[in-house]
Amino acid sequence: MGNCAQGCKNYFCRPKNTNVRFSLPAVCFVWQIAMIILFGVFIRYDEESDAHYVEFRRENNISSDIENDFYYRYPSFQDVHVMIFVGFGFLMTFLKRYSFSGVGFNFLIAAFGIQWALLMQGWFHSLDPTDGKIRIGVESLINADFCVAGSLIAYGALLGKVSPVQLMVVTLFGVTLFAVEEYIILDLIHARDAGGSMVIHEFGGYYGLAISWVLYRPNLDQSKRLQGSVYHSDVFAMIGTLFLWMFWPSFNSAITDHGDGQHRAAINTYLGLAASVLTTVAISSLSQKRGKVDMVHIQNATLAGGVAMGTAAEFMITPYGSLIVGFCVGILSTFGYLVLTPFMEKTLKIQDTCGVHNLHAMPGLLGGVIGAITAAAASESVYGHEGLINTFDFEGRFANRTVGTQGGHQAAGICVALVFGLGGGAIVGCILRLPIWGDPEDDNCFDDEVYWEVPEDEESIPPILEYNNHMTQKHTEISESNFTVEQS
Amino acid sequence: MGNCAQGCKNYFCRPKNTNVRFSLPAVCFVWQIAMIILFGVFIRYDEESDAHYVEFRRENNISSDIENDFYYRYPSFQDVHVMIFVGFGFLMTFLKRYSFSGVGFNFLIAAFGIQWALLMQGWFHSLDPTDGKIRIGVESLINADFCVAGSLIAYGALLGKVSPVQLMVVTLFGVTLFAVEEYIILDLIHARDAGGSMVIHEFGGYYGLAISWVLYRPNLDQSKRLQGSVYHSDVFAMIGTLFLWMFWPSFNSAITDHGDGQHRAAINTYLGLAASVLTTVAISSLSQKRGKVDMVHIQNATLAGGVAMGTAAEFMITPYGSLIVGFCVGILSTFGYLVLTPFMEKTLKIQDTCGVHNLHAMPGLLGGVIGAITAAAASESVYGHEGLINTFDFEGRFANRTVGTQGGHQAAGICVALVFGLGGGAIVGCILRLPIWGDPEDDNCFDDEVYWEVPEDEESIPPILEYNNHMTQKHTEISESNFTVEQS
Amino acid sequence: MGNCAQGCKNYFCRPKNTNVRFSLPAVCFVWQIAMIILFGVFIRYDEESDAHYVEFRRENNISSDIENDFYYRYPSFQDVHVMIFVGFGFLMTFLKRYSFSGVGFNFLIAAFGIQWALLMQGWFHSLDPTDGKIRIGVESLINADFCVAGSLIAYGALLGKVSPVQLMVVTLFGVTLFAVEEYIILDLIHARDAGGSMVIHEFGGYYGLAISWVLYRPNLDQSKRLQGSVYHSDVFAMIGTLFLWMFWPSFNSAITDHGDGQHRAAINTYLGLAASVLTTVAISSLSQKRGKVDMVHIQNATLAGGVAMGTAAEFMITPYGSLIVGFCVGILSTFGYLVLTPFMEKTLKIQDTCGVHNLHAMPGLLGGVIGAITAAAASESVYGHEGLINTFDFEGRFANRTVGTQGGHQAAGICVALVFGLGGGAIVGCILRLPIWGDPEDDNCFDDEVYWEVPEDEESIPPILEYNNHMTQKHTEISESNFTVEQS
Repeated sequence: MGNCAQGCKNYFCRPKNTNVRFSLPAVCFVWQIAMIILFGVFIRYDEESDAHYVEFRRENNISSDIENDFYYRYPSFQDVHVMIFVGFGFLMTFLKRYSFSGVGFNFLIAAFGIQWALLMQGWFHSLDPTDGKIRIGVESLINADFCVAGSLIAYGALLGKVSPVQLMVVTLFGVTLFAVEEYIILDLIHARDAGGSMVIHEFGGYYGLAISWVLYRPNLDQSKRLQGSVYHSDVFAMIGTLFLWMFWPSFNSAITDHGDGQHRAAINTYLGLAASVLTTVAISSLSQKRGKVDMVHIQNATLAGGVAMGTAAEFMITPYGSLIVGFCVGILSTFGYLVLTPFMEKTLKIQDTCGVHNLHAMPGLLGGVIGAITAAAASESVYGHEGLINTFDFEGRFANRTVGTQGGHQAAGICVALVFGLGGGAIVGCILRLPIWGDPEDDNCFDDEVYWEVPEDEESIPPILEYNNHMTQKHTEISESNFTVEQS
Repeated sequence: MGNCAQGCKNYFCRPKNTNVRFSLPAVCFVWQIAMIILFGVFIRYDEESDAHYVEFRRENNISSDIENDFYYRYPSFQDVHVMIFVGFGFLMTFLKRYSFSGVGFNFLIAAFGIQWALLMQGWFHSLDPTDGKIRIGVESLINADFCVAGSLIAYGALLGKVSPVQLMVVTLFGVTLFAVEEYIILDLIHARDAGGSMVIHEFGGYYGLAISWVLYRPNLDQSKRLQGSVYHSDVFAMIGTLFLWMFWPSFNSAITDHGDGQHRAAINTYLGLAASVLTTVAISSLSQKRGKVDMVHIQNATLAGGVAMGTAAEFMITPYGSLIVGFCVGILSTFGYLVLTPFMEKTLKIQDTCGVHNLHAMPGLLGGVIGAITAAAASESVYGHEGLINTFDFEGRFANRTVGTQGGHQAAGICVALVFGLGGGAIVGCILRLPIWGDPEDDNCFDDEVYWEVPEDEESIPPILEYNNHMTQKHTEISESNFTVEQS
Repeated sequence: MGNCAQGCKNYFCRPKNTNVRFSLPAVCFVWQIAMIILFGVFIRYDEESDAHYVEFRRENNISSDIENDFYYRYPSFQDVHVMIFVGFGFLMTFLKRYSFSGVGFNFLIAAFGIQWALLMQGWFHSLDPTDGKIRIGVESLINADFCVAGSLIAYGALLGKVSPVQLMVVTLFGVTLFAVEEYIILDLIHARDAGGSMVIHEFGGYYGLAISWVLYRPNLDQSKRLQGSVYHSDVFAMIGTLFLWMFWPSFNSAITDHGDGQHRAAINTYLGLAASVLTTVAISSLSQKRGKVDMVHIQNATLAGGVAMGTAAEFMITPYGSLIVGFCVGILSTFGYLVLTPFMEKTLKIQDTCGVHNLHAMPGLLGGVIGAITAAAASESVYGHEGLINTFDFEGRFANRTVGTQGGHQAAGICVALVFGLGGGAIVGCILRLPIWGDPEDDNCFDDEVYWEVPEDEESIPPILEYNNHMTQKHTEISESNFTVEQS
């Protein structure tokens, strides 16, 4: 590799090599082989998935297996699965020439991330102390999908500016950091976070923003021609938006204990989301000439209600409380797209392609705050004696915790997620600055051509144009060789 | 605002102002704030969603909560949810330059409508007389989705010709009318209508047609250039079609009582839909030169089988009966697109953009008739003694009703839905003629540009064309500065 | 019809008539009417779907209907349904001008096939000997979807080269053959094949390849201009890929017995699929200049892990075993696209449009082999005594079978599927060579225009081009009437 075109000798200032023909296969193979070995050593089926289950039931006097996960967890698992792959994937197809990477690399890193998540979360949550094995079942699959969501959110901030190899690194560290912060927040601090406002969205959002800050590209406007949508890419993105929006009630209720909390999580999320659609449209229309609505807002800010309900969804926040949350966060998120994203880019040097700050980081943090307040305000009169214990899981070594203390611990969870997101992102960002990852030049960002075989778009030449072009070309050719030409 | 370009003084004949920068945010904010207040006063969680549920179970000796809604209602709820947002939304993306509005405004009004529906249906169905509160649970969410479907169907008739503010009005009244007619048909008349042939499709279809009739635009062909699809917008619409088609068995079985009726509703709908695909293709091919199939028919008439099975799906209509229904209604619906829609536009002055008459109004009415006949023909030998009582809910004050009487009451339901649809639509249409709603001029209909920030479609200029244009432009420039130029 | 343009007298060598205005409606009507008659004679509701169910439960002392299908089968049914209609349909939209046919004809033949499948599978599996009727319920619907999948896979090999009438014939025979081979493999041989590696994928793949071999078109490159994708058609195809990928765990677990086997089937499939994504990306990147990934591989080979897990998914193959399967089959399938498809086209004269050999036939056969090995290696220590009996269904007349014998019978199943696929396909291919089916000429293949009313793509003319064209045209016109014109 030679030096920078401007002649400077800075080590990092060289024409970038986007050839990933060695590094991408190498990373995929090495990591997949590592997964196989680690799974071989550590991962086993849990009781419900093991062929000894019939005997297990008899020995443990389980008369009916109606409480097993297939009845009420599996459908929710599939909804979450759709959100991870179609939801996140298609939401990132909005750029005019980066749809392949949006949906394709999302697919790649999610498929890697869920495997790594089964291991990392397993080490913290389902390690069987008797034999040192991790037991996985249907609920583990949901948790793995949740875990990888953090890294996919980070991808949203980096969209168009990184190579697939870098994304694999982002996911490797993202999943690891997630498993640790989740363990600290949910197990050690014992904060509640059913839909992951803090654990998933706040962490994932700040993780991506910190990486993007470290990878700041001052000359990114060299690829300005590609930083926008076309008509149909915006419609593709709506597929992502709608599947996220519709299935968010499943997301927030997927791993709550079965019973009233699961119902409540679904209902509250449904209401929060509905309210944020209306305020998003309102602010979007207010901000534009002639009241025209902006697709970017509809694709993103309408989802903020689901993010902000992530922690409090299973609490008795009341239906109108959910509407208020959705109302406020829809406004805030749209303002974020209008004001904060440009401000962050100019002043803070953070380039946030999908605006994950407005959709995940800020609403996630807010969701944590709402959860802390709702928890601190809980009372036996509202929840009932047992309801309070069940909802906040005041059992075992947390049996004596009061709702006030719980509120404080929820607040502590917010901070942990923030620290892990920003700190982890800064470190990972530095790793990604090494000039070995095949990331694109500034004028090649947001372009699928760099990492994909892209088809020629012959289709877009309609017949009549071809005819006329033909005429024009012929005309031009002849003209050039003809001395009596008056024009051309 | 000035007067009409033609100089007439008619109050309604002025250049239209499509600026919704004030009205759209105002409507969104006012209505969302109203929802918050009304929800605060009226809406509470139902028993299964309240944290007191553990105590409630103990007090009421409920030993297992297996009958609770999460097991068999929640997955169906999510299927219905997909139909409302992705199904209806993407079905309306077929126009070449109205896809944003199709999917986006569908999203907006559905998100508003479900909130309003929880209130309106709650007042009629789940008002707790002891404290005047409405109790909502998972089943309420399904019903709210059903309720808003009526207004989304009406949007199909109005697509491209109204402003988002008008759509909010359509939904406000549509949901209200729906709740009243539903109460009359299902509770007072005690007609059965599990999948809403009458209550949803017939009502929604005629509601939209009546509005469209009042809003008739004689000069709509001024926007003829936009009244068609392009290749990829037709593929987008197929996403809507398929999600509607696939999940329709869930739609028709979502709120039937659990047990054999729910199974039957799914099976019958599945069969009716399958049959209508074949007859739709047959008639579509028969009607065109060289047997070419028309996408409009495939996108719409294939669904008519689900609409027509809406009432009778839970009855013992027999599997071959379901096939016969799908067979006939697929033919009728395709004929509708071929013959009735042009006839209605020319003769009856009803402009029906999506052909909701052929997909919803007529098959819905037919479905009501089929339901009435099937009910009147029911017998104890076919249903069993208890089966008859369960299927038609002949309990309480309806314990003495005979199947013959039930058939008559089903027929009465058809009339109520028709009256509410036509009457309500006529009134709402008149309200929408007020010149304050920001609807577009005739030559601006079917154009997203009016209400959306639409991206430039740079992408569609392939490189070689750009080059040639460049040549042509240069040519033009030079020509202009050349004294022997004859033309250009 | 006249003779071939080249003047030869070969009966088959005539300009083809693609007018299906008589044949397509005729086939649709005749077959749908036949379905109605056959359903009338043979098909009835099963116990769980019949209104006598309350009495049936009382007579049979069934205290709770929690084991009934709606709880854990219906959500899986809907997932499978999405795979059949959206998954297969959109996967076949990748061609630039064949998206209508891809998704539309898939819709048509699936809707016909499921009806025919209910009859054919019913005759073999759920015929009530007391009255000669077939009883259908929710599980029958899943099986019908499975059955039609074989024919849809075959469509993948034929995509672009056959008429809709031919596809109806392919489906009629495909479903019939499927029902017979399924009966032989699952009932007579008593091989296990929960996700249909052999029964569905191997059979369907070879069935399609054999047909394609008989219908070989030596001059297919006359339509080369249409044998590729455009940017957005590739994104549409990703919708199909992702819905297939996400719901494959439901596919492989949909009809396993409820309990641990169903959990295991979901988990193993999930892991196999995840692993094949990484190796697909690795091989795809390795094979291209600068490591660019190819969309064709991502759209297809990522799914091979699900196909290959179809037989062994419910066995105790272990989580890392599933990863190994996915790892290997991802590599093989991608190699198939790189090497085998061109080889088969050139040397074996098999034109395989979607590469079903690499996605279904070969991974399906491999899945059968993996299943046979896993079965033969099963032991009581791993499965437990009862677990072994349950998993392999060693009951009734198979009570004395050993795992070794079972392995042999699994291998026999592989052969049966292969024979039925190749043999059936060869025969059906010969039938399809009759010159009555309206298939397209070689230079008209892969073109929706032949069977669909296709909209003009006006949209793709951007304003500035229209202007220039206008100029050019005017110029041309005037030039022609001008005596000093030298050219144009």
